[in-house]
Amino acid sequence: MQILVPFPGMEPLARRIAAETGAEIQPVDLHRFPDGETLVTLGGDPSGRNVAILATLRDPDLLALPLRFAAATARELGATRVGLIAPYLGYMRQDTRFHPREAVSAPIFAGFLDECFDWLVTADPHLHRNPSLSALFRIPARRVATAPLLASWIAENVPDAVLLGPDSESQQWVAEVARLAARPYQVLTKHRSGDRQVEISLPDSAVLRQGTPVILDDIASSGHTLVQTLEQLPALGAPPAICVVIHAVFADGADDAIRRAGAARIVSTDSIAHATNAIGIAKLLAGAVKTVAGAT
Amino acid sequence: MQILVPFPGMEPLARRIAAETGAEIQPVDLHRFPDGETLVTLGGDPSGRNVAILATLRDPDLLALPLRFAAATARELGATRVGLIAPYLGYMRQDTRFHPREAVSAPIFAGFLDECFDWLVTADPHLHRNPSLSALFRIPARRVATAPLLASWIAENVPDAVLLGPDSESQQWVAEVARLAARPYQVLTKHRSGDRQVEISLPDSAVLRQGTPVILDDIASSGHTLVQTLEQLPALGAPPAICVVIHAVFADGADDAIRRAGAARIVSTDSIAHATNAIGIAKLLAGAVKTVAGAT
Repeated sequence: MQILVPFPGMEPLARRIAAETGAEIQPVDLHRFPDGETLVTLGGDPSGRNVAILATLRDPDLLALPLRFAAATARELGATRVGLIAPYLGYMRQDTRFHPREAVSAPIFAGFLDECFDWLVTADPHLHRNPSLSALFRIPARRVATAPLLASWIAENVPDAVLLGPDSESQQWVAEVARLAARPYQVLTKHRSGDRQVEISLPDSAVLRQGTPVILDDIASSGHTLVQTLEQLPALGAPPAICVVIHAVFADGADDAIRRAGAARIVSTDSIAHATNAIGIAKLLAGAVKTVAGAT
Repeated sequence: MQILVPFPGMEPLARRIAAETGAEIQPVDLHRFPDGETLVTLGGDPSGRNVAILATLRDPDLLALPLRFAAATARELGATRVGLIAPYLGYMRQDTRFHPREAVSAPIFAGFLDECFDWLVTADPHLHRNPSLSALFRIPARRVATAPLLASWIAENVPDAVLLGPDSESQQWVAEVARLAARPYQVLTKHRSGDRQVEISLPDSAVLRQGTPVILDDIASSGHTLVQTLEQLPALGAPPAICVVIHAVFADGADDAIRRAGAARIVSTDSIAHATNAIGIAKLLAGAVKTVAGAT
């Protein structure tokens, strides 16, 4: 990769990735007209260069066509290759038909990106039913794992941490972070009692009184999972918990709701720029880009 | 075409097209999550059927992925063909690089639709530099011309009309509407005097005093073209004008600005649902669909 093109809001992360890779940063302008169309203008000459567009895919509907326009225009202007660094990869949760006649968005969105880009780098995509990115993407796609960074942050900042996985889906990942941080962990079980009431339980709630609870979540979107968990920890005798999330989607002020539910602190990686960012993933992304993008 | 799937807001036009074609209407649900993703759910079974999605492409950025999801899901569920009826086709105005390194959105957007659909029907796309839809689209694409309907409306409702084309681009089209309505026409010339001042002139302004001015415009988006024209007509001795537009995009309350600038009335086709709709194009669209979609 020679040229890094940060979409709006991605400039700070772009500078950190450029510092690792030596790439030149070229700006791009997205002008949104009031009729809902976007004019994309590249800020530099991509001719003969290996280009990466950096865009985190929160609000993917609004970003899809501008990404297509930017990639196609870089090619028209002579870019040798055009890749996408998407620290957060949207649409991965809709990976099956939960109800009849629903769109299975994950593979369709992957197909759209296949048509736009030559390669993809992302961080911890939500791959529940798809075992790997190569099952979804035809282009070379690399995922970086943030677990070692989360574990380091926890070991350094919460030495008495007791890790909590919010549901059975998170079991494997939380166990890995706990192993790397050399701290105990528990995975919560949810029980639905009535239409709107959810209760959680722990295999061994005594462990909660041995340290500071750290709730892990891969994507904090509505924040419901974290809020539900936080609301019930006091009944289990736990002190205020710290929430560590990978992707700070935080729709509609979800981070405020999480704080109101009792979080002592919320911490996230910088895959999505947010006030809670505390764990930088630029070096991880830069390493993966080197393996997939090629030098020229 | 056997099944017509109207996107949100398109149900009234769908009923008028279905009345012409005998197609069955099947609903589709678009659920937009607060994180900017959309879940598309088809409301009926498309298996073994020839499907048309009806969506007018105002706000194309927000519609692009949902269109892709709907089309791909209809195919996965067994639809034999999937076409798009887009009464208003977005992104056709960005048909060249007006400034260096700009995206030429029109052909890129056409390529996106090529990947989603088997055929396309639209009404009077803004094809200034692209001579025809076949220069842009690989899939069969049909355009219907609204000029006869505009002419009929004018002949019936403004018998003393003097047609005005707002700029030289509109010459050919305005001449055609005038011929069909059997009324005189003039095309305005714009002169830029200073940074923000635009003056208009007419080859023969005396004609304006012979009847009611009817300003034609294909796409009323910001409304600037109509507002500028309306503001200067009084100085030419003209009575209040009627504005007839094909596509009622009307971004940011542009229709109110047009009224404030002195329009006696604003009239549009129903290619985009709007309070100004007065000219129905369902029969035209239905006719084109029959030629391109096939019966099954």
